[in-house]
Amino acid sequence: MSVDEQNAVSKPTESSANVQWGGRFAGGPSAIMREINASIGFDKIMWRQDIAGSLAHAAMLQKVGIISADDEAAIKRGLTEIGAEIEAGSFPFDEALEDIHMNIEARLSDRIGEAGKRLHTARSRNDQVATDFRLWVRDAIDGISGQVEALMRSLATRALEYADTAMPGFTHLQTAQPVTFGHHLLAYVEMLSRDRSRLEDARKRLNECPLGSAALAGTSFPIDRKMTAAALGFDRPTANSLDSVSDRDFALEYLSALSIMAMHLSRFAEEIVIWCSSPFSFIRLTDAFTTGSSIMPQKRNPDAAELARAKIGRVLGSMVSLLTVMKGLPLAYAKDMQEDKVPVFEATEAMALTLAACDGMVRDLTANVDQMRKYAGSGFSTATDLADWLVRVLKVPFRTAHHVTGQLVAMAEKKGVDLSDLSLDEMKSVEPGITQDIYSVLTVEASIASRVSEGGTAGTNVHREAGAWLERLGKGQKN
Amino acid sequence: MSVDEQNAVSKPTESSANVQWGGRFAGGPSAIMREINASIGFDKIMWRQDIAGSLAHAAMLQKVGIISADDEAAIKRGLTEIGAEIEAGSFPFDEALEDIHMNIEARLSDRIGEAGKRLHTARSRNDQVATDFRLWVRDAIDGISGQVEALMRSLATRALEYADTAMPGFTHLQTAQPVTFGHHLLAYVEMLSRDRSRLEDARKRLNECPLGSAALAGTSFPIDRKMTAAALGFDRPTANSLDSVSDRDFALEYLSALSIMAMHLSRFAEEIVIWCSSPFSFIRLTDAFTTGSSIMPQKRNPDAAELARAKIGRVLGSMVSLLTVMKGLPLAYAKDMQEDKVPVFEATEAMALTLAACDGMVRDLTANVDQMRKYAGSGFSTATDLADWLVRVLKVPFRTAHHVTGQLVAMAEKKGVDLSDLSLDEMKSVEPGITQDIYSVLTVEASIASRVSEGGTAGTNVHREAGAWLERLGKGQKN
Amino acid sequence: MSVDEQNAVSKPTESSANVQWGGRFAGGPSAIMREINASIGFDKIMWRQDIAGSLAHAAMLQKVGIISADDEAAIKRGLTEIGAEIEAGSFPFDEALEDIHMNIEARLSDRIGEAGKRLHTARSRNDQVATDFRLWVRDAIDGISGQVEALMRSLATRALEYADTAMPGFTHLQTAQPVTFGHHLLAYVEMLSRDRSRLEDARKRLNECPLGSAALAGTSFPIDRKMTAAALGFDRPTANSLDSVSDRDFALEYLSALSIMAMHLSRFAEEIVIWCSSPFSFIRLTDAFTTGSSIMPQKRNPDAAELARAKIGRVLGSMVSLLTVMKGLPLAYAKDMQEDKVPVFEATEAMALTLAACDGMVRDLTANVDQMRKYAGSGFSTATDLADWLVRVLKVPFRTAHHVTGQLVAMAEKKGVDLSDLSLDEMKSVEPGITQDIYSVLTVEASIASRVSEGGTAGTNVHREAGAWLERLGKGQKN
Amino acid sequence: MSVDEQNAVSKPTESSANVQWGGRFAGGPSAIMREINASIGFDKIMWRQDIAGSLAHAAMLQKVGIISADDEAAIKRGLTEIGAEIEAGSFPFDEALEDIHMNIEARLSDRIGEAGKRLHTARSRNDQVATDFRLWVRDAIDGISGQVEALMRSLATRALEYADTAMPGFTHLQTAQPVTFGHHLLAYVEMLSRDRSRLEDARKRLNECPLGSAALAGTSFPIDRKMTAAALGFDRPTANSLDSVSDRDFALEYLSALSIMAMHLSRFAEEIVIWCSSPFSFIRLTDAFTTGSSIMPQKRNPDAAELARAKIGRVLGSMVSLLTVMKGLPLAYAKDMQEDKVPVFEATEAMALTLAACDGMVRDLTANVDQMRKYAGSGFSTATDLADWLVRVLKVPFRTAHHVTGQLVAMAEKKGVDLSDLSLDEMKSVEPGITQDIYSVLTVEASIASRVSEGGTAGTNVHREAGAWLERLGKGQKN
Repeated sequence: MSVDEQNAVSKPTESSANVQWGGRFAGGPSAIMREINASIGFDKIMWRQDIAGSLAHAAMLQKVGIISADDEAAIKRGLTEIGAEIEAGSFPFDEALEDIHMNIEARLSDRIGEAGKRLHTARSRNDQVATDFRLWVRDAIDGISGQVEALMRSLATRALEYADTAMPGFTHLQTAQPVTFGHHLLAYVEMLSRDRSRLEDARKRLNECPLGSAALAGTSFPIDRKMTAAALGFDRPTANSLDSVSDRDFALEYLSALSIMAMHLSRFAEEIVIWCSSPFSFIRLTDAFTTGSSIMPQKRNPDAAELARAKIGRVLGSMVSLLTVMKGLPLAYAKDMQEDKVPVFEATEAMALTLAACDGMVRDLTANVDQMRKYAGSGFSTATDLADWLVRVLKVPFRTAHHVTGQLVAMAEKKGVDLSDLSLDEMKSVEPGITQDIYSVLTVEASIASRVSEGGTAGTNVHREAGAWLERLGKGQKN
Repeated sequence: MSVDEQNAVSKPTESSANVQWGGRFAGGPSAIMREINASIGFDKIMWRQDIAGSLAHAAMLQKVGIISADDEAAIKRGLTEIGAEIEAGSFPFDEALEDIHMNIEARLSDRIGEAGKRLHTARSRNDQVATDFRLWVRDAIDGISGQVEALMRSLATRALEYADTAMPGFTHLQTAQPVTFGHHLLAYVEMLSRDRSRLEDARKRLNECPLGSAALAGTSFPIDRKMTAAALGFDRPTANSLDSVSDRDFALEYLSALSIMAMHLSRFAEEIVIWCSSPFSFIRLTDAFTTGSSIMPQKRNPDAAELARAKIGRVLGSMVSLLTVMKGLPLAYAKDMQEDKVPVFEATEAMALTLAACDGMVRDLTANVDQMRKYAGSGFSTATDLADWLVRVLKVPFRTAHHVTGQLVAMAEKKGVDLSDLSLDEMKSVEPGITQDIYSVLTVEASIASRVSEGGTAGTNVHREAGAWLERLGKGQKN
Repeated sequence: MSVDEQNAVSKPTESSANVQWGGRFAGGPSAIMREINASIGFDKIMWRQDIAGSLAHAAMLQKVGIISADDEAAIKRGLTEIGAEIEAGSFPFDEALEDIHMNIEARLSDRIGEAGKRLHTARSRNDQVATDFRLWVRDAIDGISGQVEALMRSLATRALEYADTAMPGFTHLQTAQPVTFGHHLLAYVEMLSRDRSRLEDARKRLNECPLGSAALAGTSFPIDRKMTAAALGFDRPTANSLDSVSDRDFALEYLSALSIMAMHLSRFAEEIVIWCSSPFSFIRLTDAFTTGSSIMPQKRNPDAAELARAKIGRVLGSMVSLLTVMKGLPLAYAKDMQEDKVPVFEATEAMALTLAACDGMVRDLTANVDQMRKYAGSGFSTATDLADWLVRVLKVPFRTAHHVTGQLVAMAEKKGVDLSDLSLDEMKSVEPGITQDIYSVLTVEASIASRVSEGGTAGTNVHREAGAWLERLGKGQKN
Repeated sequence: MSVDEQNAVSKPTESSANVQWGGRFAGGPSAIMREINASIGFDKIMWRQDIAGSLAHAAMLQKVGIISADDEAAIKRGLTEIGAEIEAGSFPFDEALEDIHMNIEARLSDRIGEAGKRLHTARSRNDQVATDFRLWVRDAIDGISGQVEALMRSLATRALEYADTAMPGFTHLQTAQPVTFGHHLLAYVEMLSRDRSRLEDARKRLNECPLGSAALAGTSFPIDRKMTAAALGFDRPTANSLDSVSDRDFALEYLSALSIMAMHLSRFAEEIVIWCSSPFSFIRLTDAFTTGSSIMPQKRNPDAAELARAKIGRVLGSMVSLLTVMKGLPLAYAKDMQEDKVPVFEATEAMALTLAACDGMVRDLTANVDQMRKYAGSGFSTATDLADWLVRVLKVPFRTAHHVTGQLVAMAEKKGVDLSDLSLDEMKSVEPGITQDIYSVLTVEASIASRVSEGGTAGTNVHREAGAWLERLGKGQKN
């Protein structure tokens, strides 16, 4: 929501009770249209991108002879000064000028006169907005990707630390088999590496420059689109002017990638919340990422995790929002498309905060290894190991081995003991071929150590994988 | 997006290029947690509701003897002064105090001392937030409902004006049968009356007061929840304390109702855009609701309609956002639920603007009656009238009548003429029973005039319906 | 997905590998259009509604003199026989006839000749579909409402049983205060009663009959729409023919109500999953609602709860789907609207199964009262009671009382004991006014018993509330 | 919806009126659990993938010595025969066996005995399902990509044909500048090429093999995951067993890509609908892709376009559905994830049909070039050309040129003539520097021909671009 929209929202409630809701529209059509047209409230955060785009455009105009070197020099100087003004907070934003683009261009003409009026030659607001917004999204991708890598690094670091720490591996939140906490943390590194990879692909696809597409049809001026594209770090100009001003795929693909990422982090956050609850007590977070209350200072509410879990709402909502806006729009530009920015800005903000919170919690958490170990060994968690032993050693067919194991588990459950507490005779009563060797596979440690298949949970695997990730990440090398 | 979030968003791009994205989190955990916990940036617009709630609570505490009359008087005075401060813009909002509730309570204690510390007796932030937010949503419903009625009134007024104006009735955007423009406008009055009715139902359902549910379990203080409920205009207290602090149905139902309403207005806006396009030219909007350009001053871009069409994105996105947040949350309060407000505030703002824009356009538009009439009579739009005549007069079975009509239409099309241009002999060559009387049903005017069935498009119906709506709306009487 | 769509989906993969995906479209345009037009695969489940609508229409046509009594009798007989055929599974559905409406009408003409061709007089496929679909949704609402009430009854029954059973009341999944399990279950009764109430409102709003609106403009035949409306159980005819054939609000409002309901059940299901996990072990489900495995027969995977948690996806997806379809559609009927049914059918199916599963689990579950009691008393869960005592007895201001309590909790935590294990002297060292009486409020039982405020968790409240619900539900009386 | 679900849906309505909705659950818990667990109704379309996965697994088991060569031969023979049975429609599907995987494995044991019971060694249903589903999605991507290329080819072919055909270029559906119809069609080729590129990236990312991850922890058997991965065409095994069985990113990314693609096609379909409407009449579709009615045989309802416009609902709904399901799920497998398949199957079906319909319409359409040309030249569409001439020839600053042009347009509008109808003197009265040369830029043809900037609408550009696309697509070379 823009500053202006926010004021708008607040006015009805802030006004005295008997003032008409919508009283701010009492100004009539002009008040309504001002609010519809003005985007300066939210698009001013693209000022750097707008200035960068104009500088590149002016340099190109001069190069191909459309404006003079003097004009270009004046434009460059003017824009640089305007940038300084905005940075200093002294720029006089004017809602009547609608958006960041007109605010800057009008200011430029004020400052440098005629030359400023030549800047917009061979471009239009349509291609200018498309260019600025792409630049902003590209910056956002780079920023978010950096945060993703930081989180991956933190996870891999902790995974290495907990490479041999046993915990219950759950399916259906029921103990299934023992795993290592390090392995569990590395699962999230894998998810995040896909997220990062999706962002990379999105970045490549967006990295084409719409500048020079003009209003919708291209231009008759002899512009050099390759030059402006290169100056702005784009790989090439876009190929079709109508598409260039109508396309918001780059925003949608970015929001899609963020939505999937937000889902991953919602899962991690859910686990944090559950692990922190008293009956689980698998991990502990310090005061840094929890809140207590004046009355229960010992309480550690995992607020950071809860917010991280919730933010998928904002991100998915943004994705749905923009896709719904774009549905069924005829070419080329339509005002509907002005609704593209707020969803992107809000989703970016939500993910930046979520990634920071998750990174902080990963660094902050301490595993309660005794508690984890206790549950890792409960619930006949090594039943699969027993069955695999039957297959491997006695050559029992797998389905039969499962059946035999089920009988032994039922026997142990009935006696209220663990599988390893059954005597050899008891075991033999179900499957005569069982030998003393069986006990070697029934411990949590043996179970974990045996899972050395590629991608398996054995500590040796975790050490190797975590180390490999840290090396790749440390070098800034991509997956 | 709150002011703070907005700043947060803008910082990365506004900072110099080589500063780390997420640099604002350089402050470490404390910076992250501050941002996670602080909601003052967006929840301060609920200040009126918060003060109202506290006044009701204090009066009740005094009544049942929990606080003294002096304390209550001090609280009342303090809160009144604080309200004045906020209204005057001089209230010192403090992000460290997290939200509007603590900001006001802390300020109260600063001002009136001990008494201020007694205000929070027998309530908790959880029921306080739930109460304030319900009050805000209730106000929003009232505001939006008022705007809906205004729009219904404008539509009915214009419908009366255009009660007899013929236009093509489309299916598949193909001319099907003539209708009246007034009838078409009244279709939207019907949609909006359902929207209003949904809002009324939502209001009734939300109108229960959670105050007194305390943190989640109720309280041991001898409070009188009926008294606070009544003071705040609620119908009754909520029935279950756990539900009271966990429930956001009222926000979701409100967002659902807005989503359907936004869909209606997206349809109307789409029609405006199409009707304004040059090939249609069915209506004309003045400069008040269109924008031109310096270069094409004659152009009338229907920006207001396009924004109105697009806003369903924001509203549906908000609905999806909050429902996703609430998915799978265990009872009772969780921090996730702090994500409830921004979607509601944004959707409210979007709909307030959209309703204002639609109302403005309805008042502003002029129908191009000649153009509408021309298309109303094209495309063999009275073929159904011919078929109905065959059924009614010749007692031909309906399906047979359809077949006969199809043959006549094909004959007319082949000759390049209208149905009414076929000679009686030509007609008889297909169906010998046809008489001269047939020509009386083949005009646009006759077709429209004949549709007098309940709900039909005949001008007489439209006059009656539009008049009835205006009477009901004029009296402020509900549907 | 319809039978036909399903076959369509499966063909590509079922065809041999090098056959072109989309090979089913090898038939060219005709194959594509057949698939686009045919809805018989999914709309045939509306056959009862279609026959009911036609019977009412025929009776009216006869009454007003448009068809003869003989014709009506023939139609009635024919439709009755067709209904029997469909019920018996012997009806020859024909995809070439596109939908259930044409299948039945064509069959009728086959059976009774001319009279069958008169049935469609003064109606159109557009109003016929709208009527049938409303009838189906109305039936679905009644069915779902019945299931909701059954679940409410089960919850209230178990709440009565567990009215005095202590459990930890959580905020942030951290122990906050003791509550009763009965109170917790009743929170869901409240949610469901709102769901039921929303369905009731939706039913009232949909209960207007579009039949007689014809294609879009009404009709010139002297029909009696009040008569057909009454015959079909509608409250009245719809008021505007254009709106009648363009309106799908009833489906959207129904899907909205289901979405919120699905959210409620996802929360309940999440709690079941967590409560069933080994560290919590708050409840136990029997084999009836869990699955084990051949290898771990003791395992109880809460599959039913997980499915119930997941179904919100299908329901919300359906809502988003239909609202997106309707966005921006010009009046009146457009083929897009054929996409209205599958989302409604699927969401209905998802909720019917979810409600049945939840009802089953509620009846099936057994609370582990010892485990619940243990956690109810942990985590200084009576700290609030201590603070309230200070306020009530010593007249300490609330905020001060909180601070004092915090100091005592910190002292107890440091000593590794409960609050009630602190000696009176220790207590007095923090707040000299504390007396022996303090110990009377520090037990779980005292805490719960004291929460007698309206809506509070005290067992007496729960007994009363559960009883009241059972009485209301037992009598079939609405909330 | 599965066959079974469909039956379930239909039963309530098909049952006699007074039978309880949900009567199908009268069988109690077992009926409910059967419905919850059974996925055979929809997952049987993955039978090819399941058999392929089992063949690869068996070959590997034999290679590493876990099963004998005889066993593997038996398994291979058995699975081949089962495949033939399913293809022939004679396979006895059994709902009690829940899913396609157990149906096939049980059948295998029936046929080949002990060897069949060894097949499941070192794998679990969890990794098996994940593998089969990835294979299915990969096939779907290949199928959809092929359709996308076909559509791109059709568009480029028609673009070449209409490379020089003038049409109005719209912004806000208002005439802005002349463009070529070929250029407009190529804009969609660009969109589709991004869609195809997204599918390629998704395919690469999914192309890792989860087989061998077992239940969640890997296995102690000495399996060779690289061998099975290679046999199934995967690039490599997945890296983390927990992630492997918990990951549905590949489905979500696929659905995201389809959602954006569906949006593109909704825009194209909207344009078709508008262009086909009588006032526009820009194009004409034959009977092949439109429907008429018995009564108005001349009518051409663009049903195919309307369905194509609507299908974004199903696709976006599917995306929202699955993402909502996955929100907040703790690792590893949970039953919730069984809700992954129907959304993917339905979205695939929707897009396959939509692509086929769009391809058909593109091939089928005929442009009404006279009508397009007429509107291309209306509305002062060459005003920009005039302004550009002022800048280029008279060196007037761009903003000033815009102002001058605006004055001339206003003058022409007042006189009711086109810009080119103003006399030179009239022109000079506004800008004295204007010369006769100005008239050379005011025609539609000149305007179009001048837009030769890269990506511009000039016919020469369109010829080159369309030709280049056809060459790339013809060779099967990727963009």
